Amino acid sequence: MNRDIILHEVGPRDGLQFENQTVPSWEKLKWIGALIDCGIEIIQVGSFVHPARVPQMADTDLLLTDLRKDKIRSSGVIFSGLVLNERGLERGLACGVDLFCMGVSASETHSRKNTGMSIAEATDRIIAMAARAEEAGKKVQLSVQSAFGCGYEGHVPAEKVTGLVQKFLDAGFKTISLADTAGHATPDQVEKLFTAVAVLDDEAEWACHLHNTYGLGLANCYAALKVGVNYFESSFAGLGGCPFTKIAGGNVCTEDLVHMLQRMNLKKKVNLGKLIEIANDVGRFFEREMSGYVHKTGPILEYERV
Amino acid sequence: MNRDIILHEVGPRDGLQFENQTVPSWEKLKWIGALIDCGIEIIQVGSFVHPARVPQMADTDLLLTDLRKDKIRSSGVIFSGLVLNERGLERGLACGVDLFCMGVSASETHSRKNTGMSIAEATDRIIAMAARAEEAGKKVQLSVQSAFGCGYEGHVPAEKVTGLVQKFLDAGFKTISLADTAGHATPDQVEKLFTAVAVLDDEAEWACHLHNTYGLGLANCYAALKVGVNYFESSFAGLGGCPFTKIAGGNVCTEDLVHMLQRMNLKKKVNLGKLIEIANDVGRFFEREMSGYVHKTGPILEYERV
Repeated sequence: MNRDIILHEVGPRDGLQFENQTVPSWEKLKWIGALIDCGIEIIQVGSFVHPARVPQMADTDLLLTDLRKDKIRSSGVIFSGLVLNERGLERGLACGVDLFCMGVSASETHSRKNTGMSIAEATDRIIAMAARAEEAGKKVQLSVQSAFGCGYEGHVPAEKVTGLVQKFLDAGFKTISLADTAGHATPDQVEKLFTAVAVLDDEAEWACHLHNTYGLGLANCYAALKVGVNYFESSFAGLGGCPFTKIAGGNVCTEDLVHMLQRMNLKKKVNLGKLIEIANDVGRFFEREMSGYVHKTGPILEYERV
Repeated sequence: MNRDIILHEVGPRDGLQFENQTVPSWEKLKWIGALIDCGIEIIQVGSFVHPARVPQMADTDLLLTDLRKDKIRSSGVIFSGLVLNERGLERGLACGVDLFCMGVSASETHSRKNTGMSIAEATDRIIAMAARAEEAGKKVQLSVQSAFGCGYEGHVPAEKVTGLVQKFLDAGFKTISLADTAGHATPDQVEKLFTAVAVLDDEAEWACHLHNTYGLGLANCYAALKVGVNYFESSFAGLGGCPFTKIAGGNVCTEDLVHMLQRMNLKKKVNLGKLIEIANDVGRFFEREMSGYVHKTGPILEYERV
């Protein structure tokens, strides 16, 4: 295989928002800086939600502002931010987010519980917000949440997902992520669903956002890769999920994903050794063993594959 | 997908041989009995090695003899045993092993360190032992160890593996397992190697024996499934590897594998709930959290996939 892979590191947002402990800004900046140095091209710095609701994300504006001050380090990287509403969008625009990420759930129950809106209402709102971000000269990535199953509803029909994707495409948004919010995806399903959306638009960019709740994260990444997906969202140190509930699956672990890709002769320029150092530092900070594999084993000794 | 999948549970051997703590025979019998009740069709009860060298396996003959006494429970299951030499083979014949498993490493260094023999010497010896087992009316499964990479040598050329497989086939042995002893396999490699051996004989039965050292166990199982492999070796509770070294990867975890298969509408008759109970019992016995996922989360609530 010889192709360009894009990594979107979502740990500072999807990972740290679930930790009970709010991580100090300087610690986040150290980790984000190290992730930039590893060669990760897109980093989700945080989300723009009400600070009283998610105190772990209260410093997102500050982080962006501070990261921008290091002009050399920040010049080669895209900073993304998750926005849920118009107020968050304006905050993101004010502090210089490059890429706005917004999503709609494909599960009616999940949509209502998460946003208080039906899927149809949420879709209209997100498309209007996305248009506003584009007008302001920003990149936009739209995602379908619960695309592979829902913790409330169980099965999510593929037509719900392709229908939402078609609305995004019709509105002119061509960077689209399918998110396995609950970690229900199986590799055959990943292949089918990405194949089904790919035929809707051959110019769109398809991203996968997978969770490792049931241990299928890397199997699902491989399945996505097989059907042409080149854009992966993952969390350093396997952060994500909730360590205080029974269903504790985090995002796909960045260093484990990079290790798999590099063993397949992909993404060789990312500094895996340094990614492992970051994961170990995260473990020291939280005083627990992180969920990934490669930070414990180290990478397989380097040798060329035939 | 609609196909027959065979599960070969190797935890009582490949798992328990690596535990510092020798598990009492009655505990092993409880677990093996429960695995039978779950609907696992082949169970590797132990290995026939010198009891002073691997005390964890010293009761293998006793276990087989005892399991045979429960005629109802043991009637639907195949008991396998690993044998390394002629003495072990005779012990296995004496206590009623159904399926003899024997292997040769594709890595010269691994072969010499493990057996004191070159690959060529080990191959001749194993083929002679396999012939003896077949003469005695037993089933035989031959495996290529370190088929996907070697902890000593690193890269193992595919030709080494196909060459060994060809020798097994030429000698008339058609149930062949490719073992990822060190856990180095990547999914693209699994696809390539099983595709390469499959063309050598379209009547042979191909098994995969994968380890999860770097978190790629299920991804590799999926890759094997994609290229037609129907026969999987795994360990209950994710046992295997060595908990006291840095490289701690166990075998592919049986309950996680079954969960993946069942979510793909395969192997639905295996009792996953009971497999999870066994894994939790193993965790209580060893007083540590086992490495799998599904024993922690429970299976995804049952719903039909489209």
